[in-house]
Amino acid sequence: MKLTDLDETILTDVIKPRPQESYKGTFGKILLVGGNHQFGGAIMMATAAAVYSGTGLVTVACDPTNITALHTQLPEAMAIDFTDKAALTGMIKRVNTVVVGPGLGEEAASLRVLKNVFAATMADQTVVIDGSAITLLAREGLALPAGHLVFTPHQMEWQRLSEIEIKHQTPEANKAAQEKLGGIVVVKRHHSEIYTPTGDWRLPIGSAAQAVGGMGDTLAGLVGGFTAQFRDDRVKAVLAATYAHSAVADQLAEDQYVVLPHQISQALPAFMKKVSESGHGHQIGFNHEN
Amino acid sequence: MKLTDLDETILTDVIKPRPQESYKGTFGKILLVGGNHQFGGAIMMATAAAVYSGTGLVTVACDPTNITALHTQLPEAMAIDFTDKAALTGMIKRVNTVVVGPGLGEEAASLRVLKNVFAATMADQTVVIDGSAITLLAREGLALPAGHLVFTPHQMEWQRLSEIEIKHQTPEANKAAQEKLGGIVVVKRHHSEIYTPTGDWRLPIGSAAQAVGGMGDTLAGLVGGFTAQFRDDRVKAVLAATYAHSAVADQLAEDQYVVLPHQISQALPAFMKKVSESGHGHQIGFNHEN
Amino acid sequence: MKLTDLDETILTDVIKPRPQESYKGTFGKILLVGGNHQFGGAIMMATAAAVYSGTGLVTVACDPTNITALHTQLPEAMAIDFTDKAALTGMIKRVNTVVVGPGLGEEAASLRVLKNVFAATMADQTVVIDGSAITLLAREGLALPAGHLVFTPHQMEWQRLSEIEIKHQTPEANKAAQEKLGGIVVVKRHHSEIYTPTGDWRLPIGSAAQAVGGMGDTLAGLVGGFTAQFRDDRVKAVLAATYAHSAVADQLAEDQYVVLPHQISQALPAFMKKVSESGHGHQIGFNHEN
Amino acid sequence: MKLTDLDETILTDVIKPRPQESYKGTFGKILLVGGNHQFGGAIMMATAAAVYSGTGLVTVACDPTNITALHTQLPEAMAIDFTDKAALTGMIKRVNTVVVGPGLGEEAASLRVLKNVFAATMADQTVVIDGSAITLLAREGLALPAGHLVFTPHQMEWQRLSEIEIKHQTPEANKAAQEKLGGIVVVKRHHSEIYTPTGDWRLPIGSAAQAVGGMGDTLAGLVGGFTAQFRDDRVKAVLAATYAHSAVADQLAEDQYVVLPHQISQALPAFMKKVSESGHGHQIGFNHEN
Repeated sequence: MKLTDLDETILTDVIKPRPQESYKGTFGKILLVGGNHQFGGAIMMATAAAVYSGTGLVTVACDPTNITALHTQLPEAMAIDFTDKAALTGMIKRVNTVVVGPGLGEEAASLRVLKNVFAATMADQTVVIDGSAITLLAREGLALPAGHLVFTPHQMEWQRLSEIEIKHQTPEANKAAQEKLGGIVVVKRHHSEIYTPTGDWRLPIGSAAQAVGGMGDTLAGLVGGFTAQFRDDRVKAVLAATYAHSAVADQLAEDQYVVLPHQISQALPAFMKKVSESGHGHQIGFNHEN
Repeated sequence: MKLTDLDETILTDVIKPRPQESYKGTFGKILLVGGNHQFGGAIMMATAAAVYSGTGLVTVACDPTNITALHTQLPEAMAIDFTDKAALTGMIKRVNTVVVGPGLGEEAASLRVLKNVFAATMADQTVVIDGSAITLLAREGLALPAGHLVFTPHQMEWQRLSEIEIKHQTPEANKAAQEKLGGIVVVKRHHSEIYTPTGDWRLPIGSAAQAVGGMGDTLAGLVGGFTAQFRDDRVKAVLAATYAHSAVADQLAEDQYVVLPHQISQALPAFMKKVSESGHGHQIGFNHEN
Repeated sequence: MKLTDLDETILTDVIKPRPQESYKGTFGKILLVGGNHQFGGAIMMATAAAVYSGTGLVTVACDPTNITALHTQLPEAMAIDFTDKAALTGMIKRVNTVVVGPGLGEEAASLRVLKNVFAATMADQTVVIDGSAITLLAREGLALPAGHLVFTPHQMEWQRLSEIEIKHQTPEANKAAQEKLGGIVVVKRHHSEIYTPTGDWRLPIGSAAQAVGGMGDTLAGLVGGFTAQFRDDRVKAVLAATYAHSAVADQLAEDQYVVLPHQISQALPAFMKKVSESGHGHQIGFNHEN
Repeated sequence: MKLTDLDETILTDVIKPRPQESYKGTFGKILLVGGNHQFGGAIMMATAAAVYSGTGLVTVACDPTNITALHTQLPEAMAIDFTDKAALTGMIKRVNTVVVGPGLGEEAASLRVLKNVFAATMADQTVVIDGSAITLLAREGLALPAGHLVFTPHQMEWQRLSEIEIKHQTPEANKAAQEKLGGIVVVKRHHSEIYTPTGDWRLPIGSAAQAVGGMGDTLAGLVGGFTAQFRDDRVKAVLAATYAHSAVADQLAEDQYVVLPHQISQALPAFMKKVSESGHGHQIGFNHEN
């Protein structure tokens, strides 16, 4: 089985000029759930990707100790206490996409939050399951929640969820596991792989400059932001987010030994503008012309 | 009924070179009230607009949990606890403009704060009523406070306040509602509309790049900053703030798919400098020459 | 009586290339005391000026609620609780310059802090008395502390301290009051005036772009930073700080309608570098060539 | 005894293009321990150097009051409470390098943390001992911990540890003390000296622009980041970190009177990129060509 290499036409396919007659609801609503007492930075990085990609309304549910840091860097995001079940459930009802996992942690409190999220999602929502949410899901054998699911595990998390050891994570084995699981699976690795009901892909770009903590949280937030905002085709939105994440990183890596996650988010508005002006189906040559 | 299109001469009409003999009081004092435990970012964004537009003294009354984030990003702003009625009332007595609503919330505590503000404003002040303050005002049927009132609702808030459904918000209906209400009304939408006792206007600029959360908070803060600072003609100050807000956004949108609210505020000092040097009544052509 | 106009030769006179053989103690130690629960931004702005001007070691004593915001923006500064008398007194013993007043407030707790500072300063230190410390000093009739005193009042604070009404604040009256008081007095106003035991000066530069809250806090911090770092001649250090503060602002005001205090501090390292390379006594023409 | 002058070939020797097939674990894991209630900025500055130098995973153990400031500036770093012995010990088991000391303080609580760190380190780890950890080690006569030790004292801390007065800190005396102590010793001073089991070096670059508080914390963090990431040769990693720290500062000092520690860290990704593209053994002439 051979995966198809994604190319940059996925960007112009998804990121189009915004319709003039619009308001913030037009561009989606997202809730990101994560950020326990220890991993507050993870939810900040995921949220930055959602905000800078242009999601209309962004709310975060996290440990309250993280709200000051979040608001300082991202005043555009609203925040609630992730242990407040009523607030959490109420907010889930109002969004297009829920992202759960970045910095959620794996302790008892994390599990309670995850269960509350899983109990509240709805069939027509996109639910991105990332990081410790994947680990908890596998460890606790939880039933999958309602919604269109997108899993964004790194290889070890994928091993826990699929029970395929890293060395046996071939496209065939991964595809079989994704079909059994349902939904979309993004296996985050050097040249990430994306398994979907309508095709299976390999990301041919990206570099070792991205191999730093928080990079995966940023991707989860971007997948969330794109599925909330570009709602015509969920698979394409996930593919475009994955491609854009590494395309921006590759641009930054031309001048940097390492690329920090927050730098990718901050570069999104200019990157997406160029894409939106390139027109459908054109090669835009980011890696060569910039 | 036809609204008159605003043009950029409103900017040079209002934003003039500062008089040399002056001190910070010359440029006005403002109090912004909002920012509950969940919406701290909203009051930060409104305050940023007031600070970067050059208001002489800026104070914020908010939930104390937001003060650290506020001071980190905006050390120029002073802060008080919005539940401290004596401090709140005392501060209102010392300012030219009060802005109430950004991130205030709609719970019981929010209402208490709003009532305290409404009880304390004075006839010669500008009082900008925004966001959840409009919703509370409509829901609770509060009497209007003393002061020169400026309402800055988005269309749904305007529906609540005017009882005109969005689909029936024609200029005629809006004008009638503004005349009944008194004061100035800025209906925030794609091509915002501004109804005033001395004329009614339509904003012909702005784009979908602005359709993100916090954009309205920033406009409310800027209307506050301009009315505090440019006190010769309140209507013109409101018109200039509304125009400047979208003119800056349009500049940024030339290179960005989305424009974040805090970016507009940070661009104000350079934008206002160019305006102030252009001279009264001149076309300054921001959208063409930059 | 005519005040002498300061000119930019004061900059090259004071800001010289740093000696190669040096360590951080070479460039002075400063303690800044202020920042109550309401005015945390003021002590941050004063501290920024001290840090960016190159003071070797910078410590802040403030209300503990301000420490997170301070560390976020200025990790170079150390922080103690200003109500911890032992820590405060101990720190005063270890510094060259104490700045007291920015955002200190005027309540009972502020007065206790001020009294603790005044009881601990030493004859060979520079003590900069600013803002609410001046108001408290005047209101409470406190005895002056030990040390080489520098007062940095704005005109209303100067009225309280000197008992000269603003309209009667002529050079003659100001000079007489400074002589009675002792030390150096910087009357902050449009074209600030500096009264010293060895001459009296007027600042001919600066503009209304500086007329925003926090500008005076920044000047107090810069006077502190310069007196701690440039210890050959205290009067010249104060004059150079006052001149540099407005010279940097004038540069920024070429492109900005208003200049925010934190922007002045951040521009200091580049500004001081240019000065240090210009050589003693040369006209460096910042306002024309930049 | 004559120390060998380090030259910039140490940079290309250590900082090489990253292997494509890699993940964040490839680039090391680091734990930084420090930052008490007073010195939170110190641990932030050390951590910034570790993050911006590209360490794969960065965790901080500090006083919990510092976590908000840390996450605001460095969301990439994870954080634990340094008084939580189980969490601290558990984290030490999972990293390549432990840095202990920046802003740790010298009180009883600091000592408890230090003892917990010393009890948990392992023989195959790099342990960087800096700042107050050195002072406590000397004062309390603690036994040295397991691990490959790197000491980064300034001259006064070196006096405390080696019992050699500053005026007697000759290369001969320093070398004898390093041999007795074991490990690597970086004596931070104007032209720092690095004593190692395989050679002794003098840093010929750097300037008085670096003589500000926090510079040593940044170096400790960078030594940590390099030893965690470049694990082929510990001595070379320490030498390269020391050289890079001052080489970046020298670049910045071309345009700045003082260089702030956080500016060095933020400049690392671009600096390291240039080095990595220069190729092994080449002179890269940073000080001349930039």
